[in-house]
Amino acid sequence: MNQHSSVILSSTLLLAEEAKASRENLMKQLLRQKQIPMHSWDDLQIRYLFTYLSALDSNNFPNHTGVGEREGRVFSQIVKERHFYLSHGIGRSGDIKSSQPKATGSSIVSQLANAMALHAIHLSGIRNAKECVVVPCSTGMALTLCMLNFRRQKPAASHVLWSRIDQKSCFKSILAAGYTPQILQLKIDDNNDQLKMTLEDLEVAIENLGVPNILCVMTTTSCFAPRIPDDIINVAKICKRLNVFHLVNNAYGLQCDKICNIVEEASRVGRVDAFVQSTDKNFMVPVGATIIGSFERSIIDSIAQLYPGRASASPLIDLVITLLSMGQDGYLELRKKRKTLFDDFKQKLSILAAKYDEKVLSTPKNTISMAMTLSKLDSALKSAEITKLGSMLFTRQCSGARVVVKGQGKLIEGIIFEGWMSHYPNYTCSYLNVAVAIGLESREIDRFLKILEDCLCKIYSRSSE
Amino acid sequence: MNQHSSVILSSTLLLAEEAKASRENLMKQLLRQKQIPMHSWDDLQIRYLFTYLSALDSNNFPNHTGVGEREGRVFSQIVKERHFYLSHGIGRSGDIKSSQPKATGSSIVSQLANAMALHAIHLSGIRNAKECVVVPCSTGMALTLCMLNFRRQKPAASHVLWSRIDQKSCFKSILAAGYTPQILQLKIDDNNDQLKMTLEDLEVAIENLGVPNILCVMTTTSCFAPRIPDDIINVAKICKRLNVFHLVNNAYGLQCDKICNIVEEASRVGRVDAFVQSTDKNFMVPVGATIIGSFERSIIDSIAQLYPGRASASPLIDLVITLLSMGQDGYLELRKKRKTLFDDFKQKLSILAAKYDEKVLSTPKNTISMAMTLSKLDSALKSAEITKLGSMLFTRQCSGARVVVKGQGKLIEGIIFEGWMSHYPNYTCSYLNVAVAIGLESREIDRFLKILEDCLCKIYSRSSE
Amino acid sequence: MNQHSSVILSSTLLLAEEAKASRENLMKQLLRQKQIPMHSWDDLQIRYLFTYLSALDSNNFPNHTGVGEREGRVFSQIVKERHFYLSHGIGRSGDIKSSQPKATGSSIVSQLANAMALHAIHLSGIRNAKECVVVPCSTGMALTLCMLNFRRQKPAASHVLWSRIDQKSCFKSILAAGYTPQILQLKIDDNNDQLKMTLEDLEVAIENLGVPNILCVMTTTSCFAPRIPDDIINVAKICKRLNVFHLVNNAYGLQCDKICNIVEEASRVGRVDAFVQSTDKNFMVPVGATIIGSFERSIIDSIAQLYPGRASASPLIDLVITLLSMGQDGYLELRKKRKTLFDDFKQKLSILAAKYDEKVLSTPKNTISMAMTLSKLDSALKSAEITKLGSMLFTRQCSGARVVVKGQGKLIEGIIFEGWMSHYPNYTCSYLNVAVAIGLESREIDRFLKILEDCLCKIYSRSSE
Amino acid sequence: MNQHSSVILSSTLLLAEEAKASRENLMKQLLRQKQIPMHSWDDLQIRYLFTYLSALDSNNFPNHTGVGEREGRVFSQIVKERHFYLSHGIGRSGDIKSSQPKATGSSIVSQLANAMALHAIHLSGIRNAKECVVVPCSTGMALTLCMLNFRRQKPAASHVLWSRIDQKSCFKSILAAGYTPQILQLKIDDNNDQLKMTLEDLEVAIENLGVPNILCVMTTTSCFAPRIPDDIINVAKICKRLNVFHLVNNAYGLQCDKICNIVEEASRVGRVDAFVQSTDKNFMVPVGATIIGSFERSIIDSIAQLYPGRASASPLIDLVITLLSMGQDGYLELRKKRKTLFDDFKQKLSILAAKYDEKVLSTPKNTISMAMTLSKLDSALKSAEITKLGSMLFTRQCSGARVVVKGQGKLIEGIIFEGWMSHYPNYTCSYLNVAVAIGLESREIDRFLKILEDCLCKIYSRSSE
Repeated sequence: MNQHSSVILSSTLLLAEEAKASRENLMKQLLRQKQIPMHSWDDLQIRYLFTYLSALDSNNFPNHTGVGEREGRVFSQIVKERHFYLSHGIGRSGDIKSSQPKATGSSIVSQLANAMALHAIHLSGIRNAKECVVVPCSTGMALTLCMLNFRRQKPAASHVLWSRIDQKSCFKSILAAGYTPQILQLKIDDNNDQLKMTLEDLEVAIENLGVPNILCVMTTTSCFAPRIPDDIINVAKICKRLNVFHLVNNAYGLQCDKICNIVEEASRVGRVDAFVQSTDKNFMVPVGATIIGSFERSIIDSIAQLYPGRASASPLIDLVITLLSMGQDGYLELRKKRKTLFDDFKQKLSILAAKYDEKVLSTPKNTISMAMTLSKLDSALKSAEITKLGSMLFTRQCSGARVVVKGQGKLIEGIIFEGWMSHYPNYTCSYLNVAVAIGLESREIDRFLKILEDCLCKIYSRSSE
Repeated sequence: MNQHSSVILSSTLLLAEEAKASRENLMKQLLRQKQIPMHSWDDLQIRYLFTYLSALDSNNFPNHTGVGEREGRVFSQIVKERHFYLSHGIGRSGDIKSSQPKATGSSIVSQLANAMALHAIHLSGIRNAKECVVVPCSTGMALTLCMLNFRRQKPAASHVLWSRIDQKSCFKSILAAGYTPQILQLKIDDNNDQLKMTLEDLEVAIENLGVPNILCVMTTTSCFAPRIPDDIINVAKICKRLNVFHLVNNAYGLQCDKICNIVEEASRVGRVDAFVQSTDKNFMVPVGATIIGSFERSIIDSIAQLYPGRASASPLIDLVITLLSMGQDGYLELRKKRKTLFDDFKQKLSILAAKYDEKVLSTPKNTISMAMTLSKLDSALKSAEITKLGSMLFTRQCSGARVVVKGQGKLIEGIIFEGWMSHYPNYTCSYLNVAVAIGLESREIDRFLKILEDCLCKIYSRSSE
Repeated sequence: MNQHSSVILSSTLLLAEEAKASRENLMKQLLRQKQIPMHSWDDLQIRYLFTYLSALDSNNFPNHTGVGEREGRVFSQIVKERHFYLSHGIGRSGDIKSSQPKATGSSIVSQLANAMALHAIHLSGIRNAKECVVVPCSTGMALTLCMLNFRRQKPAASHVLWSRIDQKSCFKSILAAGYTPQILQLKIDDNNDQLKMTLEDLEVAIENLGVPNILCVMTTTSCFAPRIPDDIINVAKICKRLNVFHLVNNAYGLQCDKICNIVEEASRVGRVDAFVQSTDKNFMVPVGATIIGSFERSIIDSIAQLYPGRASASPLIDLVITLLSMGQDGYLELRKKRKTLFDDFKQKLSILAAKYDEKVLSTPKNTISMAMTLSKLDSALKSAEITKLGSMLFTRQCSGARVVVKGQGKLIEGIIFEGWMSHYPNYTCSYLNVAVAIGLESREIDRFLKILEDCLCKIYSRSSE
Repeated sequence: MNQHSSVILSSTLLLAEEAKASRENLMKQLLRQKQIPMHSWDDLQIRYLFTYLSALDSNNFPNHTGVGEREGRVFSQIVKERHFYLSHGIGRSGDIKSSQPKATGSSIVSQLANAMALHAIHLSGIRNAKECVVVPCSTGMALTLCMLNFRRQKPAASHVLWSRIDQKSCFKSILAAGYTPQILQLKIDDNNDQLKMTLEDLEVAIENLGVPNILCVMTTTSCFAPRIPDDIINVAKICKRLNVFHLVNNAYGLQCDKICNIVEEASRVGRVDAFVQSTDKNFMVPVGATIIGSFERSIIDSIAQLYPGRASASPLIDLVITLLSMGQDGYLELRKKRKTLFDDFKQKLSILAAKYDEKVLSTPKNTISMAMTLSKLDSALKSAEITKLGSMLFTRQCSGARVVVKGQGKLIEGIIFEGWMSHYPNYTCSYLNVAVAIGLESREIDRFLKILEDCLCKIYSRSSE
């Protein structure tokens, strides 16, 4: 644009236009490559992109005239602005990955979200992943969708094999899909405190039920210690051998290199049909979407076509903004920091535990969560004190620390889970869980340890009375 | 707050504090009554509310320390702001309507959305509705959820009875839930051009399949002319008599008094288990959520408990903001205007049609959509011209006008739909659909008619060559 | 950008790109013509523009490295966003209209503001105006700047002739510039209730002081009734004849056709060196800037060069956004509506006044403000009641209604103004002022009249006791 | 608010309300103490405050009815939001520090800005400062305002004594106020490369002009090397002795401890009537306001009363947000970092200079700016190359580095400044200026040095040809 040349020095205008051009190049590069940029985008650049995209949607056309039943009309100015004037959502009734003729901008958002999510999966270590889809629903619902999709190829099956993990929505995802969960109970490891599923149990269960009755095996990677990730490499081998679908619940495992390497390896030596992860837990966005990944494009296409209708673009917008804002280097840095903080937290917690004659449970295979015993309270039969510890932490604004009282049962949808929350009927002791998730700050660790010590000091002095 | 009294005149401060108090009263009243306010809230009032709510979520606590795997951390400042610092989503793993201990503010958003949606349902004319839940997924997916929920009470059923409507996601919602659709073909009305399902066909189909094999009957209220809403009052009677679930797809029917009155009446004289409507089509928000309503609280509770996990709060935030921004009077005014514009549009379109020896099909029972014949093109065997009309309109920035070419078939998931898009194998002529949806402006009608005339003029002169 | 062609249908992409192109054309046209667009811009279009402009400022350059003392660094993210990432302000130390090499985007904002303000002046009826500058300071300060500028050509002058208007900042603008105000007292018109300056008084004053001692005559167009605008056409003739600077305080007169026509005519037949108007009062923006206009480019250039340093761009951004958002048609419509409402309000107020044996003062030459007598309170010697009326209105959230108690004096900077607020030592009665300014809504008039009646009813019944 | 207790657990609601209460306490504390908070406020807290304040302004009253000429109406939604719905500006026509009855919220913003600015002045080291006012105009204009204010006490004076500094707006601020600048030429220091004013010159000038003719002495603290800050301690003593106003131009000196200590000391041992600093250069806000500080409340009150009219609140809003966002600790940390980076930059630049047989000029008393000689280019008579270096740096996105060519003159408002930009008719060599201002990042230094080396390499190899 040369229209201001009379007033503004041509040399400075040139420089300004160059700067603008380099912003547009960044944008073009993104639209072409659909990859997370190497370096962080600043907020202006992000707004640049969304201003461009919004102009492509028909509801923003200068002379738009809508005479249909769904025209992207938005009543509130606040709502318009918070969605950058995009309102058509993602997908078409036939396919959640489809482009909408009415909404080119929203369609590009959807493509970017899917492509950048796949890129993030690759960066995280699952390099063989072929395709993914970001679905604006919970992880549990996404697992349900996977099962509903498997059903199309195996309509007669009735059961899902599932290694116990005490997190309601995993269990409920099976029920929601209309299947009977066959629960594989865990075992305590011989050499340390870990809880794990065994391959023997799995094989016995398959044999008992019979392959034709089994829709899939659902394994879990990320979980609260002392449970550890399932041995999905060997499960994948068994599933491959027996021709059973294998669905991996990788809820917050994507943030961890070790887990990603295992998923990758499992897909190489065995069978992994889909792996499912939440966006909020792995990418620091508000709760809202789940990434379903696969090593075969056709599986993702099939799931995308299963979803009946259009869906909210909002969680995809969040993901795109966040990955642009992180850049590849920012994302990798956050992952590295998480690993470092995990070791750091474990060490510091061990020292604190020792002061109170407790210990951090030995769970070397769980690289996200850890657990500190509360044995003294058990031995003093003070389970009320244990519960109290939880609420003391919470009222001191510490959230996420989970107190597990030994041996309490719970009835869920007709099934009794003995030792609920500990994944096991009668674990050796009560304990306290903490996790090191992406985005945790070291000052949070320090503040937590200080508060925990205060609380323990109060409780232990009382409980020893 | 009395701290500035020294500088600011106490009288004006008093008035200012009074004004502030009246804003807070509005807010308190909303939180207590959970009803759409009588009058529109201004944007400042809406921001007042969300600023208050966001301070209640743990991720915004001044000294918050998070040591769990899901702490509401948000990386991007832009993302934070667009969600008003709310990040925990809605629901708990056990129940999408549950309050989250970590997120009181988000929990209130969820309650408000559900309560205000119910209020809107009542205002729309379905006064007996007892409960509803706003689910952040497509209408089709919400229908699937309803069916998955029915399955729990009728696990052996295999079929869903469905009166044909040529909208993919309705059909696919049945497949996604794992059921076989039993399609009820439509009939042309004796006295006019309407397409309708017949009760005889329904009763025959039920008899043939046998009640135990039928999960539910799925009826449709809002549809493109010449199809008309199903006779859900009598379907409801049959379902009640035979004890079959009845699911009403009320996608964009909530905006229409007539349709709402019918749903209400159906629930009084017969059986309606759930009725499902989109938020974007009825309330002018971006695509993102669906309201599932029922006349029995327990059904909604059961659906809410089926959903496995947390979900995006974003579409609920949009709904709350929009209903506050409309107020009851604004909402009712918009509905009234829609009705007036419908009559107006029909009349003007009839005049235009007459000019070209065409007519508006006689479909008095469809009060949202209408259709103008394109018979001359049929008789001249110019189906390519018909298709062209559609794209001419689109390139002139008219969206939503649907051109239906007589007698074209389509294969969807293994089933051939003859006369796809017209709900009928061989309708009497090709036609053009338009709809009068909430939020339509009269200048859009005028601009559309002008453009349509231009296009017809071009095509008809050409086709008559 | 052709990079998404593989996924998105080329036809719809084409349409989308066309829509985008038409947005960019609007923008290019604006930057080329620097005129208020014919029609309102939507908010997306406005954001489009500012996103483009912000990328042109050096602080937003992708690799910007600043090693100076002023680099446009902004600490707070909120502050960044509210200024669209622009931070360099306007002007250079030598000239407030100059372009900044570091800040092409901000410089364009400044040019746009000045050019669009001039366009608005033309549209308002002052078609001969040659140039203007938007200065981010109060109207009073802008008047001071004009006088400081005149001083450069007439350094020995000591007095400013000023027809009395009881608005502090006009008076103080003279003092701030270091001049002695020579106050011309007003006269009551023979035929009606109007207060006006007389040309005789002006000529006498000039003669008494001597032209060399007079810096300028400062006249006023917009004022509270019963004062009327000065007869600036004839003042302009006198100033031309005697070669005296003539400065017109047109504070909120720009919104009124009649006043603008007079200013225009004055410039044709006589001398008007500069006319000064506030942006907030004429264009519905927050308080912040003043437009200094002139019929000679050199005068504005000289004022622009007088201002020592850079200034806030924020009020200019507001003006640009607002004029884009109004469009020419919106702006003219608002002016027309104001005129209609003025007549309407006057009529309704007259009816109300008559009910209480009061009247609206006859001030046909004041086309913005009107006054209703409060004679009965005067005659009952109830000046406290009059004051009370003002506060009653204020506590009922009516602002802007000014109650003027007959004959109260005030000392300002050493000078006593008898009958302060009424522009006159001893006007015939107390009265109530209201004004019809641009943006007033008819429902405000109705609400005001209702409340006024309530208050009068209370006070008059009491005062007649 | 207890209205959600039925649904939300009372314990978590309690915690949420506690968190909300602690936010409100922060706000109350701020409004009571009007001090920069100890620690940074997060953005939510800042929005909390402004949402509260905006509700206090009459234009936001729920039933507001405005019948005046200035009612805070805002046309554009974007403009409303960017000003947090505040629109009344600051001050009244009588006093820019006055509270507006119509606008309690805006009035509080103004009070906060002034009080927090004073707090910042104290934190910066000028602990005796008694009062300040934030004026939304340039530093130069603020200096003009100070002089206009002094005029009221000394109407007969005609000259301002001013030690030369080659920055146009300082010089022009004197002219704008209507005074004749008496320029004190600088001397080169005996022991090093510094340029400084001498007290002898000052005393001679005073004697020559005569005290009654002198309005004030205007000194400068922050300046480009090799000029150094004026010896304001001794100037203050002289001004006190001779009873002459002393005005300190502290444009970007507030960020530097050393300079602040000197201003403080000067006020203790001598006379400093007002000291003036820009907000953008010292506090990382967009260009827009200036802080005028004084050691006597009455001086500030008098300046505040001089300003005729209301002014933009926008730059004050920026300042308040920014100081809240920094907190005391953040502000002090930024200052500390600046000091460290200054030493660092100087050392690195010296090393680079040495490589090219140049040096960093010895100017130990200038603690913000430094200068590197370009002597080789001088000796090769390559002044075009020197100019070229400047533009090479600029086109590589380095801004703020100033290249000064030896001995070029400039005519400004009728006065020739020999050796313009170097503050001196014929400095010993050409040189390059850089400054270390608050907010500079060490990566900027490194990038600059790299680019400078590249440029020097190109130019010196060429110039040595």
